Amino acid sequence: MVLRSFLVRSKYRGLGPTLAGAGIGGVRYLQTVIPVNIKELFSHPPQLNSLVTARGHIKSIRHFKKVGFIDLSDGSHYRNMNVVLSSPDSTLSALNLKVGQSVSVTGQWVESKGAQKYEISYSPDDPNQELRIIGNVTESYPIQKKSHTLQFLRNVPTLRHRTSTLASVLRLRSFAETKLIEFFNAHNFIKVSPPIITSSDCEGAGEQFVVESNKKSSSAGVHPSFFGGKTYLTVSTQLHLEVLAASLNRVWTLTPCFRAEDSNTNRHLSEFWMLEAEYCYVDKLSELTDFTEDLIRYVTTSLVDQNQNSVSGASLDLLAARYKKEDKAALQRRWETILVPHRWPSVTYENAIGIINEHKPRGKADKALEWGDDISTEQEKWIAGEHFKSPVFITDYPASQKPFYMKRSEKYDPAKPTVACYDLLLPEIGELVGGSLREHNYEQLAQNMDLLHMNKEDMDWYLSTRIEGSVPHGGFGLGFERLISFLSALENVKDTIPFPRVPESCPC
Amino acid sequence: MVLRSFLVRSKYRGLGPTLAGAGIGGVRYLQTVIPVNIKELFSHPPQLNSLVTARGHIKSIRHFKKVGFIDLSDGSHYRNMNVVLSSPDSTLSALNLKVGQSVSVTGQWVESKGAQKYEISYSPDDPNQELRIIGNVTESYPIQKKSHTLQFLRNVPTLRHRTSTLASVLRLRSFAETKLIEFFNAHNFIKVSPPIITSSDCEGAGEQFVVESNKKSSSAGVHPSFFGGKTYLTVSTQLHLEVLAASLNRVWTLTPCFRAEDSNTNRHLSEFWMLEAEYCYVDKLSELTDFTEDLIRYVTTSLVDQNQNSVSGASLDLLAARYKKEDKAALQRRWETILVPHRWPSVTYENAIGIINEHKPRGKADKALEWGDDISTEQEKWIAGEHFKSPVFITDYPASQKPFYMKRSEKYDPAKPTVACYDLLLPEIGELVGGSLREHNYEQLAQNMDLLHMNKEDMDWYLSTRIEGSVPHGGFGLGFERLISFLSALENVKDTIPFPRVPESCPC
Repeated sequence: MVLRSFLVRSKYRGLGPTLAGAGIGGVRYLQTVIPVNIKELFSHPPQLNSLVTARGHIKSIRHFKKVGFIDLSDGSHYRNMNVVLSSPDSTLSALNLKVGQSVSVTGQWVESKGAQKYEISYSPDDPNQELRIIGNVTESYPIQKKSHTLQFLRNVPTLRHRTSTLASVLRLRSFAETKLIEFFNAHNFIKVSPPIITSSDCEGAGEQFVVESNKKSSSAGVHPSFFGGKTYLTVSTQLHLEVLAASLNRVWTLTPCFRAEDSNTNRHLSEFWMLEAEYCYVDKLSELTDFTEDLIRYVTTSLVDQNQNSVSGASLDLLAARYKKEDKAALQRRWETILVPHRWPSVTYENAIGIINEHKPRGKADKALEWGDDISTEQEKWIAGEHFKSPVFITDYPASQKPFYMKRSEKYDPAKPTVACYDLLLPEIGELVGGSLREHNYEQLAQNMDLLHMNKEDMDWYLSTRIEGSVPHGGFGLGFERLISFLSALENVKDTIPFPRVPESCPC
Repeated sequence: MVLRSFLVRSKYRGLGPTLAGAGIGGVRYLQTVIPVNIKELFSHPPQLNSLVTARGHIKSIRHFKKVGFIDLSDGSHYRNMNVVLSSPDSTLSALNLKVGQSVSVTGQWVESKGAQKYEISYSPDDPNQELRIIGNVTESYPIQKKSHTLQFLRNVPTLRHRTSTLASVLRLRSFAETKLIEFFNAHNFIKVSPPIITSSDCEGAGEQFVVESNKKSSSAGVHPSFFGGKTYLTVSTQLHLEVLAASLNRVWTLTPCFRAEDSNTNRHLSEFWMLEAEYCYVDKLSELTDFTEDLIRYVTTSLVDQNQNSVSGASLDLLAARYKKEDKAALQRRWETILVPHRWPSVTYENAIGIINEHKPRGKADKALEWGDDISTEQEKWIAGEHFKSPVFITDYPASQKPFYMKRSEKYDPAKPTVACYDLLLPEIGELVGGSLREHNYEQLAQNMDLLHMNKEDMDWYLSTRIEGSVPHGGFGLGFERLISFLSALENVKDTIPFPRVPESCPC
């Protein structure tokens, strides 16, 4: 039978049980043979002493008198595949092996005394065994065995993810995305794709990128521009999410956002990914902060709890990428900060500046904060990291510091007008999340816009949702790179995204 | 104990088991109360005769002598919540209820004779029950009970997803994204986020959007542009994916891509989402086509197989959105087309034009295809839909029709130069996927670029991967909206994305 033959020839053992668990039978779902990678050799070890083929880049070569070792990595797993050379002299001199080359080795699958349990033994005398170079390197191949600084690696954008640290961060990022999907599915949120190109400015901050076709529009000739008007890259998809929440009840997205801010810090990217969620019928700010906390706890718990003995764990992955014991300990302390055994504290802006004024040590030149002042990043890090020693929500900021769409605080004082919003501050990194209840009353929202001299006509589409079956709702946005930065303890967000975009830098 | 109290106050019954299944204990993961939605009322029905509150938009009002009905929808589920009014006269006249209003109803949870099993009975005489309007509508609220054309709905972008058809398509889209994550995780692919803003033109087609800051760059003043050079929105992330595959073995992404083509068809968007995958050590084209087939079968099988009796099924969702019996049958036929009990046929370009010339009926004016001619969209739909009656792979196209990065065909004829590539054609929609083996030899790749007079200096970063441990690899790209369009039988891709962007149209 035709079908059967497809199933029989499947040698990819890893896949079967996983997808079977997802309820997929074998008849209408066929399985392809993909060349096995190093992760799969470790997770589904072949029979002892059988011949196996492994492929990857050479990470290191060690040459002793009677034995040699090659460490191979293909990036699929934090452990390298150890290849033991029984005749190191002849093998290494014949092939001129170098760090960075991609090679294929067919040898014997044997037990290892090392942490990886198994290794490949290669002997040039066995005609069934083979070691060959697939791709050579230049003399200046920059990724050598020694540990490189992250700053150095940013200068080799096409090769830096061959290091164990930066590969492990991308694997963590992928893991976190899966956990987000799980979390939002469990809460019956619909994942949506709001637009990247928009004619609106969500934050009203004006630091946007303009988008235009590289040709003049040819059609009709009426409009000089491709879309028939000025268009920008989105700074936040929130306004569109609000529209979709009103239709689908609960929505979320993980999508690129763009800010043309001329700042080059370790916390900013011109292009970054933002997780945004929006849902209906929420009327208490504490419900939104609880939900935000749940979300971040879920990702972190998954990272920490996953099978400690598994070969596929993202936490092991990260820990293995840290060479020093104290780095490993610091990483684990970070995760514990998230998982404190009580709800994260929540204080109002007014109380927060009180705490900062009272407790934060300050130099003689530093003035006390007055109501209405911005809390600086340094103060944010202090209140989370030093004062509360945990993530902390700051709520009810002055309306003047926040965008037009936020609802007034429940306890509203016209003398000190505040909005029902919150920032989540984390130790070490400061602001991670910003959220609020949204003003769903047409008149109030229009008044907010008038106060800021905003053009209501441009925002007609958004305002209209407040007169056609408007519903109370709220939501938040989370900078995904900042979350990965916190979880991986890489201080610079440039190291948490494959190709960072910042002012003066878009090399590829 | 503090923690315990958080767990006890959780009334959200849907969440516990799902996340417990994902291996999450109750201690470090806290659960928030989110206002229950209509999907959750159906999936976790409250106790009979208890008082429940449901919130949503009014989809329809039916008024009989002694009884009245309101259908409520909040977009979370394909079924409406039926509210039975025991005193329709007084209730409807007192409140002036209208289609489109958002309302909150607290009434008695009772069994229903209808398909939805349960409904809410509302009596104004019970002081514990309540029916109130949350958000009113204008006189011109456009979404009425009658069925609207999709074309009409495109003119009300902020309200169109309140219809059952367009809400079901967004729920399908979200479902499909989850299935993609499952599939790629099971195959040990890493999900990555390649850049949206790029200085390269992947396809060499030149129809790109230019990106620039809306202010002049202020820093240094050396460069007149924000990034220090011309930058574009990506047309395909493939080149960056190739770099990442060389580091991580197998990578994929689902990311926005942009084409500034001045064409306004039902198959094109200026901004669309593309699924792209790239992996190492593949050297046979048939392996890539098999893998592509597996992927699409997996999503379709999941759609069809899911619990037929569940309230949360995406297939039921779509079927329920079809009012006519013949539409439901057509939808099911589409899914069966994908799930034919044999591997999808694969023919070379040369054989495909032979089949078209021999078998496709053509008018007297139509000329036969000659080697090198493009196969038209109409011919693509015919060969899949009429000739093979199944998806079909067309492989080994003339090199002149394809980009520079593709590897030569295994059977290479210098008189008719072809490349190791494939297009996947589907009945009804034509091309869905394009993929190829990539040229990983530096000299050959550089020669390809020279033949096309490409500027090698601009692509230095990409070419460099061919001299630093180059590995054989291949991959493909799939237009996500086209897949959703096929699965949902909505012919126009504009109806498969929340806010479509096309020439002359970016209203919000």
